[in-house]
Amino acid sequence: MRLAVIGVGLIGGSFAMALKQARLVTHVVGAGRGQANLRLALERGAIDSIAQDAAAAARDADVILLAAPVAQFPGILSSLKFKPDAIVTDAGSTKRDVIAAARAALGAKVRQFVPGHPVAGAEKSGAAAASAELFRGRRVVLTPIAENPPDEVARIEKLWQACGANVTRMDAEEHDSVLAAVSHLPHLLAFALVHEVAQRANAGQLFAYAAGGFRDFTRIASSHPEMWRDISVANRDRLVFEIEEYEKKMRTVKALLKAGDGAGLERLFAEAREARDQWLKRSS
Amino acid sequence: MRLAVIGVGLIGGSFAMALKQARLVTHVVGAGRGQANLRLALERGAIDSIAQDAAAAARDADVILLAAPVAQFPGILSSLKFKPDAIVTDAGSTKRDVIAAARAALGAKVRQFVPGHPVAGAEKSGAAAASAELFRGRRVVLTPIAENPPDEVARIEKLWQACGANVTRMDAEEHDSVLAAVSHLPHLLAFALVHEVAQRANAGQLFAYAAGGFRDFTRIASSHPEMWRDISVANRDRLVFEIEEYEKKMRTVKALLKAGDGAGLERLFAEAREARDQWLKRSS
Repeated sequence: MRLAVIGVGLIGGSFAMALKQARLVTHVVGAGRGQANLRLALERGAIDSIAQDAAAAARDADVILLAAPVAQFPGILSSLKFKPDAIVTDAGSTKRDVIAAARAALGAKVRQFVPGHPVAGAEKSGAAAASAELFRGRRVVLTPIAENPPDEVARIEKLWQACGANVTRMDAEEHDSVLAAVSHLPHLLAFALVHEVAQRANAGQLFAYAAGGFRDFTRIASSHPEMWRDISVANRDRLVFEIEEYEKKMRTVKALLKAGDGAGLERLFAEAREARDQWLKRSS
Repeated sequence: MRLAVIGVGLIGGSFAMALKQARLVTHVVGAGRGQANLRLALERGAIDSIAQDAAAAARDADVILLAAPVAQFPGILSSLKFKPDAIVTDAGSTKRDVIAAARAALGAKVRQFVPGHPVAGAEKSGAAAASAELFRGRRVVLTPIAENPPDEVARIEKLWQACGANVTRMDAEEHDSVLAAVSHLPHLLAFALVHEVAQRANAGQLFAYAAGGFRDFTRIASSHPEMWRDISVANRDRLVFEIEEYEKKMRTVKALLKAGDGAGLERLFAEAREARDQWLKRSS
């Protein structure tokens, strides 16, 4: 099996390395914007050759993974010519916009496009951070479209399972709603808090007294601005909904504070802690 | 030097252990609500004896540390009889309310009360988690009052420095403002997010797709509800102010989303990331 990876970063590189380790690929060809990154991917054995561009990488491939920033997908997809039995899949964090881009670019060939999203929190990026173990025990969500032949979806599912991932299926609408609540919203909240503190007149003093709680709470505010721009714009309707629900919750908290309602605050905190502890127990 | 610790948890136990390691105390007497915890503190060598109550612990002490939940301070302070040359200090996370309680309970003896706050993020609690190293490189803020003789403040400062802490001074008003922004607000935001997710009809599904970013963002939502009730109520005016500033920032984010303003979002994310990365560099 010949694999093409368009965008050989943390996700694309790790997918290639995991499938090589599982002996499911014979040759991996990589393409992408950064030559230094591609050479590193080659040195690390994630890929076996570097193609001039996405089209050249895809031409003879059996499976093509798009792991570039999502905003590049329309251009990449329009440039692709792939074999009639090839499958194209992706690793984008939002799925409705990716599917719309695939329909627009591929026409009837969209049947060969199986959309996916590995939910693997990426603090680091680039081929340097790639690892055959990245997806072990992590979730991968496939959001197949009506045109996908069931066998093709199953082929992509098996590849991710071979990477050690726990693969589930959802429709794209549901995927974007769920991820808005538990991933996209927290990212925006963290970016907003750091931005708020940083623009205060006494920002230096504020940061000087920020401790471990602040560091962990804002870790995701060190995420990649370009990637989060694309996610935010693509999923903005769901994000606006989530922000407004969150604003309602904060109005409740503010009302409890204004009323000095210690018992009400303690109940809310205890319910949140209990829910989080139960979640950690289930997921460990 | 004879030390009394009222509330021998993570903070009180660690203070005792660090001062013993620095050979600055000859005897530590502990008092508190939980007998099992006090026995553990004795076994671990954090304290040398257990007093029947706070008053008995304080009677012959040279230094008395209040490290119980802040809501218990008025009762504890009213019960204390201490030597004319003893100093009382505390480890409460809010300072205006603690000073008010000390004034009300101690009268003219409030000159012997030097308020303090070790800014040591506490994921774990109890004497079991105490360590002589807890305060090494951490900040301790003293918020002296006008009545404190400078020598007495310096005595407390030296004790915390002997624990390895970086001691600074502020007035209580400023302390409560700074901590509201970088500690108290993030805690409320994290509790609120978990509470919001937990009460959704599809909470099980949402938690199932929550990953590492959500886990770190919400770590502080596993903090102690009783402690955070006391902090929230004591500092509610500053917290309401901080929530309202944060709401304004989120309205800006929402407006960028609604306008599909990718460039504006990317700028905000990049500024936040840069500010956070600079902070991490300075504090490492």
